Amino acid sequence: MSTIRKVVLAYSGGLDTSVILKWLQETYQCEVITFTADIGQGEEVAPAQTKAENLGVKKIYIEDLREEFVKNYVFPMFRANTLYEGEYLLGTSIARPLIAKRLVEIAHETGADAISHGATGKGNDQVRFELGAYALSPNLKVIAPWREWNLTSREKLLAYADQHGISIEGKRKGKSPYSMDANLLHISYEGGLLEDPWCAPEESMWRWTTSPEQAPNQPDEIELEYRQGDIIKVNRESLSPAKVLETLNYLGNKHGIGRLDLVENRYVGMKSRGCYETPGGSIMLKAHRAIESLTLDREVAHLKDELMPRYANLIYNGYWWSPERKLLQQLIDSSQMTVSGLVSLKLYKGNVIVLGRQSKEHSLFMPKIATFEEDAGAYKQQDAEGFIKLNALRLRIEAMNKYQS
Amino acid sequence: MSTIRKVVLAYSGGLDTSVILKWLQETYQCEVITFTADIGQGEEVAPAQTKAENLGVKKIYIEDLREEFVKNYVFPMFRANTLYEGEYLLGTSIARPLIAKRLVEIAHETGADAISHGATGKGNDQVRFELGAYALSPNLKVIAPWREWNLTSREKLLAYADQHGISIEGKRKGKSPYSMDANLLHISYEGGLLEDPWCAPEESMWRWTTSPEQAPNQPDEIELEYRQGDIIKVNRESLSPAKVLETLNYLGNKHGIGRLDLVENRYVGMKSRGCYETPGGSIMLKAHRAIESLTLDREVAHLKDELMPRYANLIYNGYWWSPERKLLQQLIDSSQMTVSGLVSLKLYKGNVIVLGRQSKEHSLFMPKIATFEEDAGAYKQQDAEGFIKLNALRLRIEAMNKYQS
Amino acid sequence: MSTIRKVVLAYSGGLDTSVILKWLQETYQCEVITFTADIGQGEEVAPAQTKAENLGVKKIYIEDLREEFVKNYVFPMFRANTLYEGEYLLGTSIARPLIAKRLVEIAHETGADAISHGATGKGNDQVRFELGAYALSPNLKVIAPWREWNLTSREKLLAYADQHGISIEGKRKGKSPYSMDANLLHISYEGGLLEDPWCAPEESMWRWTTSPEQAPNQPDEIELEYRQGDIIKVNRESLSPAKVLETLNYLGNKHGIGRLDLVENRYVGMKSRGCYETPGGSIMLKAHRAIESLTLDREVAHLKDELMPRYANLIYNGYWWSPERKLLQQLIDSSQMTVSGLVSLKLYKGNVIVLGRQSKEHSLFMPKIATFEEDAGAYKQQDAEGFIKLNALRLRIEAMNKYQS
Amino acid sequence: MSTIRKVVLAYSGGLDTSVILKWLQETYQCEVITFTADIGQGEEVAPAQTKAENLGVKKIYIEDLREEFVKNYVFPMFRANTLYEGEYLLGTSIARPLIAKRLVEIAHETGADAISHGATGKGNDQVRFELGAYALSPNLKVIAPWREWNLTSREKLLAYADQHGISIEGKRKGKSPYSMDANLLHISYEGGLLEDPWCAPEESMWRWTTSPEQAPNQPDEIELEYRQGDIIKVNRESLSPAKVLETLNYLGNKHGIGRLDLVENRYVGMKSRGCYETPGGSIMLKAHRAIESLTLDREVAHLKDELMPRYANLIYNGYWWSPERKLLQQLIDSSQMTVSGLVSLKLYKGNVIVLGRQSKEHSLFMPKIATFEEDAGAYKQQDAEGFIKLNALRLRIEAMNKYQS
Repeated sequence: MSTIRKVVLAYSGGLDTSVILKWLQETYQCEVITFTADIGQGEEVAPAQTKAENLGVKKIYIEDLREEFVKNYVFPMFRANTLYEGEYLLGTSIARPLIAKRLVEIAHETGADAISHGATGKGNDQVRFELGAYALSPNLKVIAPWREWNLTSREKLLAYADQHGISIEGKRKGKSPYSMDANLLHISYEGGLLEDPWCAPEESMWRWTTSPEQAPNQPDEIELEYRQGDIIKVNRESLSPAKVLETLNYLGNKHGIGRLDLVENRYVGMKSRGCYETPGGSIMLKAHRAIESLTLDREVAHLKDELMPRYANLIYNGYWWSPERKLLQQLIDSSQMTVSGLVSLKLYKGNVIVLGRQSKEHSLFMPKIATFEEDAGAYKQQDAEGFIKLNALRLRIEAMNKYQS
Repeated sequence: MSTIRKVVLAYSGGLDTSVILKWLQETYQCEVITFTADIGQGEEVAPAQTKAENLGVKKIYIEDLREEFVKNYVFPMFRANTLYEGEYLLGTSIARPLIAKRLVEIAHETGADAISHGATGKGNDQVRFELGAYALSPNLKVIAPWREWNLTSREKLLAYADQHGISIEGKRKGKSPYSMDANLLHISYEGGLLEDPWCAPEESMWRWTTSPEQAPNQPDEIELEYRQGDIIKVNRESLSPAKVLETLNYLGNKHGIGRLDLVENRYVGMKSRGCYETPGGSIMLKAHRAIESLTLDREVAHLKDELMPRYANLIYNGYWWSPERKLLQQLIDSSQMTVSGLVSLKLYKGNVIVLGRQSKEHSLFMPKIATFEEDAGAYKQQDAEGFIKLNALRLRIEAMNKYQS
Repeated sequence: MSTIRKVVLAYSGGLDTSVILKWLQETYQCEVITFTADIGQGEEVAPAQTKAENLGVKKIYIEDLREEFVKNYVFPMFRANTLYEGEYLLGTSIARPLIAKRLVEIAHETGADAISHGATGKGNDQVRFELGAYALSPNLKVIAPWREWNLTSREKLLAYADQHGISIEGKRKGKSPYSMDANLLHISYEGGLLEDPWCAPEESMWRWTTSPEQAPNQPDEIELEYRQGDIIKVNRESLSPAKVLETLNYLGNKHGIGRLDLVENRYVGMKSRGCYETPGGSIMLKAHRAIESLTLDREVAHLKDELMPRYANLIYNGYWWSPERKLLQQLIDSSQMTVSGLVSLKLYKGNVIVLGRQSKEHSLFMPKIATFEEDAGAYKQQDAEGFIKLNALRLRIEAMNKYQS
Repeated sequence: MSTIRKVVLAYSGGLDTSVILKWLQETYQCEVITFTADIGQGEEVAPAQTKAENLGVKKIYIEDLREEFVKNYVFPMFRANTLYEGEYLLGTSIARPLIAKRLVEIAHETGADAISHGATGKGNDQVRFELGAYALSPNLKVIAPWREWNLTSREKLLAYADQHGISIEGKRKGKSPYSMDANLLHISYEGGLLEDPWCAPEESMWRWTTSPEQAPNQPDEIELEYRQGDIIKVNRESLSPAKVLETLNYLGNKHGIGRLDLVENRYVGMKSRGCYETPGGSIMLKAHRAIESLTLDREVAHLKDELMPRYANLIYNGYWWSPERKLLQQLIDSSQMTVSGLVSLKLYKGNVIVLGRQSKEHSLFMPKIATFEEDAGAYKQQDAEGFIKLNALRLRIEAMNKYQS
């Protein structure tokens, strides 16, 4: 075992990372620095302070990263209309690069020689944390206890906690049967009954959204204002990025919007089943496509659509800090210069319905040209003949060739 | 004007194509053969017989193409999870290649030297008809009256009809303010109020679906069986392709599923606003992704996702009969060999909710590997370290390089 | 015929554009302004002055655009290792956007309401000129005499010239049997014997390069210095972009480098046969790949390679001034920040042979890691096992599935 | 160490794999079966028989796989015009899947529970062998001695050989300073002086090709006949696939064709420097593009060009036996149905010069349409106006929008 003197641990304050904290101290005989971030997971981060202190931690970082999270990670990702495998809004994936970055920065500030996290060896999160860390600080060590230790079952973990005086109140019974992860963009569920993909989740699993059935019979109509691809106002009120997402989450939750039940392909090679609630994100995707439909050039829109799956893969697989993701981001961001205007939506029992879109400055929709009425020569229908003829030329030559041969 | 002796006209029996019929006879002094197809537009095709006869047509083709339409056009397209510009299910686009093919075949059977259609010079349909015709019969002439004649306003058209004894009952007033197109996959609306993209359509516009608000409070649960990418059973009953789609349309209509309000980019270079109802298709897209999520290899799924926008463009732009579409189709079809199994869904007020998916023979989901519980060595977590390390290597080298320079 | 008052004509001073000049004056009864640019075609532009004056032109633009051409068009294109259809270096295509831009600018300066060019209705150049013009000035008129007039044969053209006192000295006989186009990047040949793709060009056709057979028996070795993707020094001498290309052309011509004989697919739908000499460009492509191989991240390089055919299409088809080309250019340009260093080459009888490449600041080649010798732990071979195991996991699961079913 | 009873070893008969043979017997106390294939590496395979016998091997497979190699691996790859990173013809990569397949088949025949190979933990070949093996036989064990043992230097290896009576004649001194690999498609060189990318290889390194300087002053002209994308005749003589490649290798070697000096990106994350001779392959690439240029539809050609880098990656990275490679191969193979005809070439001092191409049945080159002369109405130049106008429409609308805002 190499000599580790100081480790920065991504610490939630929960049982698992508390055990990791202890295990690191014992196994590596090193100082552990804890880092706990509020990225909108909806749980208090303050208790992590006491818990860490109780475990003898001297340097404790507790930070509210919600604005940074939405502004620099969530919003840029939504500019691309990003969906992994056609459906997943990447709620877990997009939070990891920020955590990785802060872990590395804290390691640099404190002179730590390693970072550690509580992700298992089976999942994507370990990859996302570690690729991020290596890209930002190539010589930092990474300790992934789940890949190293022999606490290979829940029982062993609880026993270890017990031995070391880590509180396991309610863990033995009351615990949710699901493995969950939450941040301002989404909450996810895995494990338990979900390991059978034929089995529908119980209604009680969903923690954020009202079910469509229970959602209000009265729809809400909202108006979103976009500037350069990002929402800056909800119902004419200027809001910070995190406030935008919070507001849309509130509305989405109320109206049963954004549930997803998915079998997905992990980067480590297996399929897994996950359920997700992404209320605000689901509204944002629909709205962003609506404002782009009016303001984006056709070929730019198609280029974005063709690159999107690749961009989604990069985020899903943990390559946020890679040079190729940054280059694609530049292209995506540049495409958004004209994506400004208003989108009006109706929210109703799981549905996000576009009512209208407008852009005073950047609309490329020309009623005079598109109209079914007389267009006073704005468009010359005869031009279509030459357009079709030359587009058909290669097809005709090939068809002639077939007849002859 | 070249000498045209015989023209096959795509004839709906409506006012516009009746005027075209007459105009062709007058202008080209040629025989007109009419072709009317039932592709599920929901209107009787029989009256077209009498109308054509009244206009002096001697050779009249009236055909029920619903099964061919769904089997050879709709189903293949859905194997690719096809969406144009992220949202549009291509309901109009996919019907055109079949019409083009029959026009050409009838022209060959009857020795006609031209075909004709009622699509305007502003839209995509002219392109789809004509590229199809040219690809299938390179020397056939195409007459597109809307690009040739001087009946450039509704009034002139009605006057012409009047002059030539074509019935215009109810056309002057009762007419829908929208330009509509329907087939078994969808119904579309353009024009009228929709020419202002900020203006939401009236509820009365929608002809097929109940609104989500009016849809039943009781959901329906259905089970679809897939074989090689296509649905072969609904609720355990074997159905032909057209019957599958009819059944799903019925269910989708009942539950307010499949409305779409879109600004889209036409191939001829303008943006236009359209509203669509694709009830069965919306169910099919969701279900197909679900069965693929279980049975398709990750990289195959991603390859399909990256090629899909291009494939959608080809269909939207009228290149169904092109060699590049056929090659992509082969790849898509081959990918579906293992896409068999069951999908169970809940339909409720506009929502299509996946409840479960299973595939006895082809599931690639391995609970033993994916489980959060002890996996008895099915997956070696330590492998992830090397996996991450080598994936990170280039990123680390680049980061080291940045520090040094 | 619409009322045109003033036209800017891309004027070479040759017979064809002189006839066009006259024809425009006669047909449109308008003022013609001529624009003649030196983009390195190797012919004097000065005579165009007298010729235009003789035809009564009052406003004559003659400009040396060689530096702008190489700096803003050729160099950016080479940053992408651009090849159309695997082989063509786009020598003609890349000059058109600059000409289009200047035509539009001059039209604005002079208050002209139209531009005109001498490209035929069969080729790509008309598209390139006109798409450029429309993108830069949407309401400007474009006059393409070859698509309008009835001078449809060489004889008619000569007769018209004769009638209008345009000198046709040597045109009837001495004329090259090939249609040629030249600029600092290349010279092209089309027509004549080349219209039979089985027929090899005569040695006498090639105007720039020595044949490999006649090239010196003694190779030259050269060293190129790159900064951010562009060559800034040849053999340690700082040179302007145009001088770089001139120097490499000189060397390439001497050593028989850069001949290409190609059947290509035109945007207007036909195949055509062309021969090209691109001496300097051929050296630049090889050298640029060499410096990138050392300094570019793997995934960035692969992303560029996958986007390149699309980027090449855009240039070939005339979309230089489109928003999608600009976005791709941004991505390409950003990728070049680290593409700096030296490339050493040997030039010999048609061959461009890389001798070495180095980059003091940006090399990502780490001999310590790549070495076949002991690497002192720089790379842990055991990591490869996990890397392979997880990359294989999906393949193994699929194989297990096949055995079972 | 798990219990291995029988291992199939990819055995060259050379020092390294002889040491591995011994080491497997000693370490795993298991039976070793050797498999030696002639894939055109140019060395006798017969001696492997005696050497294996001397090391106590009882089951010895020695096979001539040259025809299978070219027919089922090399030719399919060349149908795609495959180049890795713009330049590398994948000579090493393409041989591995065949070896992997035979190892697996022999393991099945002999009831072996593992396979083994002599590739190091730093390179791509381990990945190619092992991904292939896992895809074809998911439960087979793979032993990669270079990742396991402690013979980490050349000296230790030689000592081990000495101890165990393995002949090391000439290995201590006469040995080439380069690590080499050869098969019918190419020979590669790595290591030694090449580890400095600024350092050009010595002329003496190259083993197959005459240098361009020493190549004959007299060119050879050859004619290749293609059927469905593959060469079936050279100079009108029908030849088997392996004979085609042997013949082209002979000609390429004679004329100094196919040398390449490259820095490439390995799948395991590092850059490495390699030199390659691919004489016949270099001729085939040029010729295949030539016959495709005449017989392939434009959009099919462009689709292939856009997919090619991805396909090349798959082969380079070892995914020959993956479902995604197979799907792409189907698309590629289908595209070749019309790729038949003749290509005539001149070979001279490193140059492969296309002289002509023809295809009686499948040429899509229409001189009547492409001609610069009068075309008797085969192509209507006026069509180009509409074609350009509609392609420009979105650009014009955007430009108008810019002016207004």
